Amino acid sequence: MLRSHTCGALNISNLGNDVTLSGWVQKSRDLGGMTFVDLRDRYGITQLVFNMESHEALCQEARKLGREFVIQVKGKVIERSSKNKKIPTGEIEIEVADLTILNAANTPPFTIEDDTDGGDDLRMKYRYLDLRRNPVRENMILRSKVAIETRKYLADQDFIEVETPVLIKSTPEGARDFVVPSRMNEGEFYALPQSPQTFKQLLMVSGFDKYFQIVKCFRDEDLRADRQPEFTQIDCEMSFVEQEDILNTFENLTRHLLKVVVNVELEDFPRMTFDEAMRDYGNDKPDIRFDMKLKDLNAQAQNKGFKVFDDAEQVLAINAKGCAGYTRKQLDKLTNWVKRPQIGAKGLIYVKCNEDGSFKSSVDKFFGQEDLAEWAKVTDAEAGDLILVLSGTANEVPKQMSELRLEMGEQLGLRDPKVFAPLWVVDFPLLEWDEETQRYHAMHHPFTSPKPEDLDKLDTAPGEVKANAYDMVLNGSEIGGGSIRIHDRDLQKLMFKHLGFTDEEAQEQFGFLMNAFEFGAPPHGGLAFGLDRLCALMGGSESIRDFIAFPKNNSGRDVMIDAPAKIDDTQLNELNLKLNP
Amino acid sequence: MLRSHTCGALNISNLGNDVTLSGWVQKSRDLGGMTFVDLRDRYGITQLVFNMESHEALCQEARKLGREFVIQVKGKVIERSSKNKKIPTGEIEIEVADLTILNAANTPPFTIEDDTDGGDDLRMKYRYLDLRRNPVRENMILRSKVAIETRKYLADQDFIEVETPVLIKSTPEGARDFVVPSRMNEGEFYALPQSPQTFKQLLMVSGFDKYFQIVKCFRDEDLRADRQPEFTQIDCEMSFVEQEDILNTFENLTRHLLKVVVNVELEDFPRMTFDEAMRDYGNDKPDIRFDMKLKDLNAQAQNKGFKVFDDAEQVLAINAKGCAGYTRKQLDKLTNWVKRPQIGAKGLIYVKCNEDGSFKSSVDKFFGQEDLAEWAKVTDAEAGDLILVLSGTANEVPKQMSELRLEMGEQLGLRDPKVFAPLWVVDFPLLEWDEETQRYHAMHHPFTSPKPEDLDKLDTAPGEVKANAYDMVLNGSEIGGGSIRIHDRDLQKLMFKHLGFTDEEAQEQFGFLMNAFEFGAPPHGGLAFGLDRLCALMGGSESIRDFIAFPKNNSGRDVMIDAPAKIDDTQLNELNLKLNP
Repeated sequence: MLRSHTCGALNISNLGNDVTLSGWVQKSRDLGGMTFVDLRDRYGITQLVFNMESHEALCQEARKLGREFVIQVKGKVIERSSKNKKIPTGEIEIEVADLTILNAANTPPFTIEDDTDGGDDLRMKYRYLDLRRNPVRENMILRSKVAIETRKYLADQDFIEVETPVLIKSTPEGARDFVVPSRMNEGEFYALPQSPQTFKQLLMVSGFDKYFQIVKCFRDEDLRADRQPEFTQIDCEMSFVEQEDILNTFENLTRHLLKVVVNVELEDFPRMTFDEAMRDYGNDKPDIRFDMKLKDLNAQAQNKGFKVFDDAEQVLAINAKGCAGYTRKQLDKLTNWVKRPQIGAKGLIYVKCNEDGSFKSSVDKFFGQEDLAEWAKVTDAEAGDLILVLSGTANEVPKQMSELRLEMGEQLGLRDPKVFAPLWVVDFPLLEWDEETQRYHAMHHPFTSPKPEDLDKLDTAPGEVKANAYDMVLNGSEIGGGSIRIHDRDLQKLMFKHLGFTDEEAQEQFGFLMNAFEFGAPPHGGLAFGLDRLCALMGGSESIRDFIAFPKNNSGRDVMIDAPAKIDDTQLNELNLKLNP
Repeated sequence: MLRSHTCGALNISNLGNDVTLSGWVQKSRDLGGMTFVDLRDRYGITQLVFNMESHEALCQEARKLGREFVIQVKGKVIERSSKNKKIPTGEIEIEVADLTILNAANTPPFTIEDDTDGGDDLRMKYRYLDLRRNPVRENMILRSKVAIETRKYLADQDFIEVETPVLIKSTPEGARDFVVPSRMNEGEFYALPQSPQTFKQLLMVSGFDKYFQIVKCFRDEDLRADRQPEFTQIDCEMSFVEQEDILNTFENLTRHLLKVVVNVELEDFPRMTFDEAMRDYGNDKPDIRFDMKLKDLNAQAQNKGFKVFDDAEQVLAINAKGCAGYTRKQLDKLTNWVKRPQIGAKGLIYVKCNEDGSFKSSVDKFFGQEDLAEWAKVTDAEAGDLILVLSGTANEVPKQMSELRLEMGEQLGLRDPKVFAPLWVVDFPLLEWDEETQRYHAMHHPFTSPKPEDLDKLDTAPGEVKANAYDMVLNGSEIGGGSIRIHDRDLQKLMFKHLGFTDEEAQEQFGFLMNAFEFGAPPHGGLAFGLDRLCALMGGSESIRDFIAFPKNNSGRDVMIDAPAKIDDTQLNELNLKLNP
């Protein structure tokens, strides 16, 4: 080794030791007869001291060291005169007797500090320097820890990790696949998996009983701010289980991870049906770190002569506790906020609940004090609170109100990233109507089992059929989801029919799975966690990109290596491909 | 859960318990008043008993159960009258009171037994049934265990697992890349990584210090018998290390794995230079479970009037201990074996060392007893041994003799898969001459550091330059390899030049890495293990396919899901691609 210790290892107990350290020059300071250098590696920072009196040449050399030079020093551990109690190595320093420059460094394009001066684009281009910064590296260490702890926990519970193939077959259902032309099979393509769904189900047919895998998945979608074309799942499946068994198993895993990785103890996770979540939060992944539930005001607000409400399908209100003091300016800002195209509301009605028990609203012309008192009753508003009201179609208003609720939670400081509020949302609908294609799509995926008691509604009221499908939600983000699967060939065939597959299409794309169901498939179910998102939440961040070592930008580009890129004509020819002119 | 216990859990201590079991019908036997069913799951087999007298209807139903039906039973644990001491559940059986068929099963196309009647093609098509068989499932469990133990071990040594991207950039150097057309970046392609080499080096530049990853890699090569287009590496890199540190770290990992997974204790691994391996075994991955070294007979066998030897560049011999008794038929068979095109020898010369001290050879016409005694001396042959001699070009004979040596080792039972003989082969050449392209290629890869003392030979004698490159060899298979890397921009540039890159090509393809070297790159090195091969060897198998859940065949096809396959024209259009007519 080019070192005897790391830069985080030495302390007062090492006084007098002769040591060799290697690392990066974090900074240096010349103080007359002395030069001090902070030497950094992944493990910490150790102060080096070069003495002009005793080692003049050496000290001169040290004065030439630039930021981020890689050096090796030999010297003795001595006690510092001015101690730094904030770091483990802060009581000692190294009196350097020998210095080797292992590699010089150009001045980095941004500072390697916790708060850097580098912008997003620059940091992505020089990601290898960005990763040198403590907060970014700490994110990667957190991710590594989440992965190993997940594996240990599941392996201890008799789960087997099985690697499923990356080069599989394209299926038009769902999101768009990335495809890989096959040179050996002319005119044919592999696809990269959007998830190992069918393979894990086959492993259940194989009797693996408990499977997991931490696995890369791929989706060729137009990227939204926080989507990546390649992402990582903790993918799990179990046999001979009911929904309750799966919820318990993975609630325990999540509780374990929060405990060992970020030292947070969680209670039992609350459960909420999809219908309740939509009613109370306008959202199937509610942030329950705070209450502020959506309240229906139709009965109280309609038919009082206010045309906006009367024409609306739904009038919804929330109670922003303690916000009666909001100024005109603040309220205007909120109104503009809900009118942005991303939210799309037409306007915002407010009611201030004054300290004296009276109400002051933006619709005083249409609603008297008694009306407003009714609203306050429905929304549990008290003196000092602010009621916010939106109206519109039953499809849009809950979404808009959900956004407003989150915004108010933010403004009121109710969304502390150090507070963790998980929950299970259960009883998802099996199907959802797609306006574009004018047909039902599987809400989760085509392998999800309808609730047995709803089976007869498949023909008559498909939108009302519920599934044994569930999501784990943490702080308003979906971190995992799954379902009890179909394990019966006939039911699977029926599902494909309802999803608009012809028998031939179903057989061609998923024949192997339906055939497998004929050879003794056990009842089974599972779920998948989004590892990127889980890590981001545990690390207190909104952005998954901060938790991916080499992420891609919104155009799917890696700007550091400059990929994707053109390929040689010989490569294209070998693949029997031509670019469209 | 659809069970209170697994099929491997119950024993005599559970007598009298009411239990619920679920699993597959392994087999059933009707014995007059009783029907016995072996119920199987991943954990074991439990005997069920249905009593015609007490539960007639139930027993009738049980008699209709076919092989591989999935059932659930409720009943009481009772003591068996005829105990089976070979299995943990062999002292008890379940007196069944309730039977539910969870899923019926067609008769499987081959028997689900340790020794199945299914051929390779059938088993691959129904891989999900093949995976039900104990030996195949045990292979997957071994693999799972190797992976988790690797991770635990390396994490305990402060290694961080970092996921590197799968969608990267194509580089023409080395094997052929699989490419992935980008829809969002028209006319451009990602490539799937052949290894995370450059990314792990960037992580060293980032100061990650110790990195590992168990990661899928991809090579679009014409497949040999035991190659897969996607394969898994244990990929590692360390900073501030010398070769010795890496050898020690991963020797210890390997020793740990062999101990915990297959309970084999290994001594320190021997080390051998590449030159020694080639000289003594004709092979850079010698199987040292047995000796039988190659011996040069040029001095003893040439210039004695035997034209075949005199015209040869090299005459090589091995000593097949105790084989003097080989019959004419056996020797003819061996001769034909070496003359097969896969080996390509022109013929085989033998010398039998008779018990009376005399020699009998196939070249007695040219060599007297004294000559042959010389040969015996060189090869350490004693009475009862058989000397086998091949001759030809210095390029071909060692390879042929290496093959013959392995074959003789096989015939003599010296290659027991339960015996593990690891070694390090070190000091590999930096470059190797490629006849086809008439230039030097990197033997390991272009990032491997030449030995500093050989640097000046790069211009004068490039073939003689040695590298700090090493392979770990186990039982004649390379299971891992790596090197100390270049960390200096100028040296890396020089290497690319020697490999025939123009400055522009080097910059375009690897500019990001060479730039990174300018911002403080530490000395670093690493290695990668082939997980598939490592698992196969630990499991005592020659075939990696047995240790991959869903392998591809020699045409790169997954015959179970039938991939690759044609894709829709709309998909091609979206990718701006056309198939060549």
